[in-house]
Amino acid sequence: MDSHAKISIMSMSDDSAKRLSEHSGQEKSGEHSRLSGPKFFRRRIALPQRFRRRTRPGEVPGRVEADPEAEPPTIHVMGYSSAEVVEGVVEDISQLDEYLAKFPITWINIDGLADAKLIQALGTKFGLHPLTLEDVVNVHQRAKVEDYDDYLFLVARMIALQEDEVQTEQISMFLGDNYLLTFQERKGDCLDPVRTRIRKKRGKIRTRGADYLAYAVLDAVVDGYFPVVESLSRELEQLDAELDDKNLTTNTTARIHRLRRDLLLVQRSIWPHREAVNEFSHLTGDWITDETRIFLRDCYDHVIQLVEIVETYREMCADVRDVYVSEISLRMNAVMKFLTLIATIFIPLNFLAALYGMNFNTRYEWNMPELGWPYGYPLLVLLMVGIGVGMLFYFWRKGWLRE
Amino acid sequence: MDSHAKISIMSMSDDSAKRLSEHSGQEKSGEHSRLSGPKFFRRRIALPQRFRRRTRPGEVPGRVEADPEAEPPTIHVMGYSSAEVVEGVVEDISQLDEYLAKFPITWINIDGLADAKLIQALGTKFGLHPLTLEDVVNVHQRAKVEDYDDYLFLVARMIALQEDEVQTEQISMFLGDNYLLTFQERKGDCLDPVRTRIRKKRGKIRTRGADYLAYAVLDAVVDGYFPVVESLSRELEQLDAELDDKNLTTNTTARIHRLRRDLLLVQRSIWPHREAVNEFSHLTGDWITDETRIFLRDCYDHVIQLVEIVETYREMCADVRDVYVSEISLRMNAVMKFLTLIATIFIPLNFLAALYGMNFNTRYEWNMPELGWPYGYPLLVLLMVGIGVGMLFYFWRKGWLRE
Amino acid sequence: MDSHAKISIMSMSDDSAKRLSEHSGQEKSGEHSRLSGPKFFRRRIALPQRFRRRTRPGEVPGRVEADPEAEPPTIHVMGYSSAEVVEGVVEDISQLDEYLAKFPITWINIDGLADAKLIQALGTKFGLHPLTLEDVVNVHQRAKVEDYDDYLFLVARMIALQEDEVQTEQISMFLGDNYLLTFQERKGDCLDPVRTRIRKKRGKIRTRGADYLAYAVLDAVVDGYFPVVESLSRELEQLDAELDDKNLTTNTTARIHRLRRDLLLVQRSIWPHREAVNEFSHLTGDWITDETRIFLRDCYDHVIQLVEIVETYREMCADVRDVYVSEISLRMNAVMKFLTLIATIFIPLNFLAALYGMNFNTRYEWNMPELGWPYGYPLLVLLMVGIGVGMLFYFWRKGWLRE
Amino acid sequence: MDSHAKISIMSMSDDSAKRLSEHSGQEKSGEHSRLSGPKFFRRRIALPQRFRRRTRPGEVPGRVEADPEAEPPTIHVMGYSSAEVVEGVVEDISQLDEYLAKFPITWINIDGLADAKLIQALGTKFGLHPLTLEDVVNVHQRAKVEDYDDYLFLVARMIALQEDEVQTEQISMFLGDNYLLTFQERKGDCLDPVRTRIRKKRGKIRTRGADYLAYAVLDAVVDGYFPVVESLSRELEQLDAELDDKNLTTNTTARIHRLRRDLLLVQRSIWPHREAVNEFSHLTGDWITDETRIFLRDCYDHVIQLVEIVETYREMCADVRDVYVSEISLRMNAVMKFLTLIATIFIPLNFLAALYGMNFNTRYEWNMPELGWPYGYPLLVLLMVGIGVGMLFYFWRKGWLRE
Amino acid sequence: MDSHAKISIMSMSDDSAKRLSEHSGQEKSGEHSRLSGPKFFRRRIALPQRFRRRTRPGEVPGRVEADPEAEPPTIHVMGYSSAEVVEGVVEDISQLDEYLAKFPITWINIDGLADAKLIQALGTKFGLHPLTLEDVVNVHQRAKVEDYDDYLFLVARMIALQEDEVQTEQISMFLGDNYLLTFQERKGDCLDPVRTRIRKKRGKIRTRGADYLAYAVLDAVVDGYFPVVESLSRELEQLDAELDDKNLTTNTTARIHRLRRDLLLVQRSIWPHREAVNEFSHLTGDWITDETRIFLRDCYDHVIQLVEIVETYREMCADVRDVYVSEISLRMNAVMKFLTLIATIFIPLNFLAALYGMNFNTRYEWNMPELGWPYGYPLLVLLMVGIGVGMLFYFWRKGWLRE
Repeated sequence: MDSHAKISIMSMSDDSAKRLSEHSGQEKSGEHSRLSGPKFFRRRIALPQRFRRRTRPGEVPGRVEADPEAEPPTIHVMGYSSAEVVEGVVEDISQLDEYLAKFPITWINIDGLADAKLIQALGTKFGLHPLTLEDVVNVHQRAKVEDYDDYLFLVARMIALQEDEVQTEQISMFLGDNYLLTFQERKGDCLDPVRTRIRKKRGKIRTRGADYLAYAVLDAVVDGYFPVVESLSRELEQLDAELDDKNLTTNTTARIHRLRRDLLLVQRSIWPHREAVNEFSHLTGDWITDETRIFLRDCYDHVIQLVEIVETYREMCADVRDVYVSEISLRMNAVMKFLTLIATIFIPLNFLAALYGMNFNTRYEWNMPELGWPYGYPLLVLLMVGIGVGMLFYFWRKGWLRE
Repeated sequence: MDSHAKISIMSMSDDSAKRLSEHSGQEKSGEHSRLSGPKFFRRRIALPQRFRRRTRPGEVPGRVEADPEAEPPTIHVMGYSSAEVVEGVVEDISQLDEYLAKFPITWINIDGLADAKLIQALGTKFGLHPLTLEDVVNVHQRAKVEDYDDYLFLVARMIALQEDEVQTEQISMFLGDNYLLTFQERKGDCLDPVRTRIRKKRGKIRTRGADYLAYAVLDAVVDGYFPVVESLSRELEQLDAELDDKNLTTNTTARIHRLRRDLLLVQRSIWPHREAVNEFSHLTGDWITDETRIFLRDCYDHVIQLVEIVETYREMCADVRDVYVSEISLRMNAVMKFLTLIATIFIPLNFLAALYGMNFNTRYEWNMPELGWPYGYPLLVLLMVGIGVGMLFYFWRKGWLRE
Repeated sequence: MDSHAKISIMSMSDDSAKRLSEHSGQEKSGEHSRLSGPKFFRRRIALPQRFRRRTRPGEVPGRVEADPEAEPPTIHVMGYSSAEVVEGVVEDISQLDEYLAKFPITWINIDGLADAKLIQALGTKFGLHPLTLEDVVNVHQRAKVEDYDDYLFLVARMIALQEDEVQTEQISMFLGDNYLLTFQERKGDCLDPVRTRIRKKRGKIRTRGADYLAYAVLDAVVDGYFPVVESLSRELEQLDAELDDKNLTTNTTARIHRLRRDLLLVQRSIWPHREAVNEFSHLTGDWITDETRIFLRDCYDHVIQLVEIVETYREMCADVRDVYVSEISLRMNAVMKFLTLIATIFIPLNFLAALYGMNFNTRYEWNMPELGWPYGYPLLVLLMVGIGVGMLFYFWRKGWLRE
Repeated sequence: MDSHAKISIMSMSDDSAKRLSEHSGQEKSGEHSRLSGPKFFRRRIALPQRFRRRTRPGEVPGRVEADPEAEPPTIHVMGYSSAEVVEGVVEDISQLDEYLAKFPITWINIDGLADAKLIQALGTKFGLHPLTLEDVVNVHQRAKVEDYDDYLFLVARMIALQEDEVQTEQISMFLGDNYLLTFQERKGDCLDPVRTRIRKKRGKIRTRGADYLAYAVLDAVVDGYFPVVESLSRELEQLDAELDDKNLTTNTTARIHRLRRDLLLVQRSIWPHREAVNEFSHLTGDWITDETRIFLRDCYDHVIQLVEIVETYREMCADVRDVYVSEISLRMNAVMKFLTLIATIFIPLNFLAALYGMNFNTRYEWNMPELGWPYGYPLLVLLMVGIGVGMLFYFWRKGWLRE
Repeated sequence: MDSHAKISIMSMSDDSAKRLSEHSGQEKSGEHSRLSGPKFFRRRIALPQRFRRRTRPGEVPGRVEADPEAEPPTIHVMGYSSAEVVEGVVEDISQLDEYLAKFPITWINIDGLADAKLIQALGTKFGLHPLTLEDVVNVHQRAKVEDYDDYLFLVARMIALQEDEVQTEQISMFLGDNYLLTFQERKGDCLDPVRTRIRKKRGKIRTRGADYLAYAVLDAVVDGYFPVVESLSRELEQLDAELDDKNLTTNTTARIHRLRRDLLLVQRSIWPHREAVNEFSHLTGDWITDETRIFLRDCYDHVIQLVEIVETYREMCADVRDVYVSEISLRMNAVMKFLTLIATIFIPLNFLAALYGMNFNTRYEWNMPELGWPYGYPLLVLLMVGIGVGMLFYFWRKGWLRE
């Protein structure tokens, strides 16, 4: 059926086709950034500042106000049955009717949330509650599942390393009887393998319902955390190795700090999925088939694993920081001890030398008669050596010479 | 219906009209202080000392004793149906009867809790339990919902930045069949958008019951946390950026300390709303329509988001503090190392110089014969250079020269 | 009915009357100590060492062994109906029968637990379980409610500031159909307002059952925490203000330490009341009327508020301590930097001065020819100034001059 | 019936009689060590290393392998009815039959677990499950209750101060219809008061069932924690007092460390009793009479009290440590400030003195003409005094002179 | 029946026989490494990096992709009834049919997960769900139990000390009616005693069902944690002893760090077994007999014990680290005090000596007349001694001389 898909793409405008290819090409660059581990910590990771609500407090609930910085939307549609698959980029939402009528399952994906009108038009078309539309544009939602009568509303949070930074992106899903409507903040996602499975008819995705498609998307989102966590684990391991080599540089603190913050971000992102996936898999009613439930249980397992791994890493990271701090104390101690050694040995000697540099009138016999002794100097040097050795012995006994 | 509202305002005393306009003007200044981020941390944030109960331990429960420092009350009334809205500032509570008789929903808002008699008179009029009235004046209540037979009693806590300080204010609500009675500590609140929605008939607020009005007020209170949290997040980001630029000033500790305290205050304020909003949305009986329940679920979501964001920020803040403390240690280390370097190099050299400044009688051949050597001075200088270089080599080998 | 009460007091022995007046006078001194905030932290607060069980491990359970340091008991009785109130100090427990027979409600209060026989006699008279009597004298019980068939056994913990120290005192209550039996460790309590309400017929206490009396006592105990917490909050605020003024004195640590310990004590005392009050208000059976239940819910609210406030203060206190510790580090840093500045500038200069103070024989042309240069001294001074300025520049560039 | 008991002891072998008397004598020495508080922290407290399982991983479950270091067993039997009591040390377990046949309740106590065969023989005799026998010899069990059809299996952990160390000892109990079988690791326990109660017919123990005996043993074990906790509390109080007197010695850290470890050990030992006692008191079936349930509730209360007290002490101990650490910082600060004061005042003065000790040829007018001024020396001394005073003023202004 | 087993081994290929003997030989070397305690902390313990999923995000779920670094598989089979046991290493899975047909219970153990095809073939043969097969090769699963209709899927995590490192290894079990299928990552495990019990007919394992075999394997895995924890406890005790001897070496921090990490690893590994074993023992349906349930309860007890012991050790380890850090502070304090003592005594003396080394022209009477005093030098020395003694007195009063 792949040829069919190509034909339908041909009938799209050039612009749309370009967008579609960008869509597919994203995957590679994501792959690239994932591999650029060593540069990973060069840049500052921004705070999750996007939680900013655009809806003013006290305003009518359910208002859809687009973020002025949001990307313009691209509507990508895939209609498929077990027999065929057609995909394309549509400009007008009326074009969707054809897909919905023809195919048992239609996946409509919108990248970019800048067009409030479009979102509201989709809401009207599919009968979506205004509050859910508000959640779509306010991209600081926690992962969750909400059961409306005609559709399920799911929110998940994708994670990716882009330009060596941990970036999260909200994906909002509306699961209806014969459609899945997904909204993403930006172009580029971790869902291309799912699209490929549909196109190439890999696995059973083409023969199952929209609930399985929703599962497939959710599973891809959750599994997308693994490479990010793996990248963070490499950084942790490297920090650990540097501690062992006593090779501490000034930016070690900063790196530990960033790693901790990244792990916190990942933890906070993945955590609510736990509840959401669990709730999804235990929904009553006809939303999910028993077969899909087994897959969702597997997905839930992955979430739990991620939560535990990230927690373990956070504890390890705290340990690394503690070791680092105590290593600094130890070094300081060593430096101080050396200073003490040198200073306390030489201070009395210096005093003696200064003493015999005084210019008292030696004609009086009580004034520094030592200066006139024939062996005054050698005796003094002997005294000095004695004091130095005595000091060293004292230090040794105190255990200050052992490192 | 706006003209009607104006007419009824015209019939008020001048004083009342002024109060009403103050009421509306407040919104702007709130907006202003929200934007004055940079000055935000100049002032000390007071402890939530207002928890002070005025009721003496062991006294008759349900006594309403006004705080001597409380503001004098202003009673603002809005009666509305889907057809019309009338609002005004009343001086005497008997004037309320007209509103209650005429409109399906009447919103009575009292700003200022100084008049215990007024509050008790309202309690008698609406049949309110003395204990709830006591809670109204003891403004240290947690957010909560209590179901009495004739009315619901809700407490929420508004938050605002006033003069660059985080201020909380208790709002107590009595929800009856055809009225909503709200008590606030001070003039000025975050509810003007709700009033505007009623006045301008925006959204569906005019067509729904008192339960929706209570929701709208609660939702405005909860959403009022977002700009405050956003302001705190900006401060956190700025602190983080300063750490990266190694631009630590002496008041960084104080700023971190205040940010932590603010976040704690916000956390402690928002936290009980979680339970309260949840309980409100799950109340059995006829208090809430199913439509409003959906909106309350959305409001609950916002509370959860706030709780998680604030928690994340508190952890990040703790991290920032840890980095700051370890940065200070590192600096101290650097300073110490420099001192050690200089001191340990020069201490032995200084000793040698002092040694040869002694005034032993050089006529005796054992007394400092070096002074009489033709090349004594250059040899000594060579020795000193050798000691200095040796010391530097030792430091370099110890890794103390690397920063 | 106040006159009646007076008459019955008149019929008491002089000694008893004196005790009774001490009883009432206590209230004032409690008030006094509550106001003496500034002196509050002069004394050491004792550990809650009283948990010491007098019953030896393995002994017969339910043995009542009086603490040798306990106070001698005073039995104070109040019998009241809605019509009259009679009170007095009785010497013999057989005198109680008259009260119990005559009044619907009799409140018997015993201050001081030194007399094991008296307690056992009361136990026999009212049919109390030996284990509860054992709990009365072992005054380290947690707040709790136990339902025996004939009576309820309640334990609460009063708190007070006495001589500027946080003191807790166990109050054990036996609630029967027509009596309330309370045991306290010492004379003086926070229940005088309750007694006054009974005497003056304030509120509805005279018209309600023994359950309401038990509630009133419990409520007075719980509300008695508020002034103590308020006093601790003032200390916290003062510590905070001192940190802002950088006005740290050596006993700041000790004060923070004591504040933390006090807050811990208060927290540990109030915490079990949460469960106890909740359990009390949800008891099935006829113990509590529905009216009293509403009051108990209010009391429960107060406990929750106290728990949260104390928790918040403990976190704030921890923050204050952290700031204090980091402030000390900062100061130390400043001191160190100053020392480094002075020392590292002068150490090389000193060396040069010492160098040219050496007494090499300058007749040889290689021995310190600089001493013989006509402009040697000005050149050296110039060199020294150059070294000093260079050092300062280095420090400035390192950022060590900025405070 | 005491005479009867003596007679049966007479008929035992000398060896057995000696063991029995050791048994009773133990009580006194325990008392002694409890009082030797001051020496308490001299010795190292061993880790709870005894958790070592003797059963190899993968072996047949239920194997009873005796610890090679275990003590040889002594079997002590008490048979009693309300009328009489007979006790003795038996050599052979067949001797038990007589007791079991004659008395309604027989308490068989085995001290020492070295004899695996004996334990297995007892297991066979009483029909005990092999897994429970394995738990008897692997003495690292948590307190627990297991309900087998014919008997109850209870594990508790006794605590004692022996030779100034906190020692825990597992006691395993099998409660059958007419017997209580207890296994202890070592001779000497806290159960002698229970034995005395049986012998002297104190309390109601002789008239009640085996369940009450089990309760009595459990209660004695739990109450045995109180004197240990009291001893630890004295140490805590002493540490606290030393902090107040600023009387810190080098072993303070070690003492705090040990106290913390002891408290941890006690906490970990007592904690599982919470669940076990609760479960025991809520067992369905005929195991426990309602009367005993009330006593078990009291025992549960004691466990909760212990848990809370130990938790409070652990927090206090952490506070004490924090104060100690910050006290050390403060001291260091004071020492550093003093050094800075002295050093920074004298370093410039020293430089000046060294400067005028240089030997430049003063015949040239540019070379140190100050040396030739008639008032050069007094002027220099004035300058030095000025510099010193200026420095002191600078320090004073910086607040470094205030302690 | 042992002879029968030997015969069937004889009929295997040489290669298979070698593998089988390796299998049995493993036990000894495991024993060896367990005893090599002292070297235990030489090597770095790798992070649990193996969590890396081989399945790409978004791919078809249930894909079995072998880890390129995985070991090649060995299939070891044991078929047994109460009468006989036959074991062998099979090359082809069709050979399994014979065992399955002949014996009531067949245990198939696969060591090494490199062969994805083999695993999928086994999956097809036994009708295993693809998701469970995916879990078999992605060896970062938590311990869990999943109930499929035809079989139970269990995951556990073995732990071992190999070459002085803590190593975990996933064991996946499929429990069917008449078979147990186990997959392990590597050769060598802790299950040889179980095999021996089957071979030698020790205990009742030969007479019970497959559920008992699954229990036996699980129990061996859990009990395998004890020697590892014991080894860690020895290290903890040693660290503790070194702290007492004040014998701190530079690698103490590193050792504490590693011990903490190991304990964390063990804790994270054992923790999920808690839930898994509990769930296993409470499974409804015919999976487990009541007899096995009792054994599983015992196994659950062991898990709880391990969890608590490891938790206790982690807290103790944290305490040890705190003591270590404060010990370092104390030492630094001692060093600093010594420096201060020496420096502050000699700095003023040095100044005086330098002062009288100045070369002012003493012909003028105001220029250093002291130099010309007949007793100038002795007076100065007296002054110096006075200053030194005064300083020492000051230090003593300050308490800086006390260590």
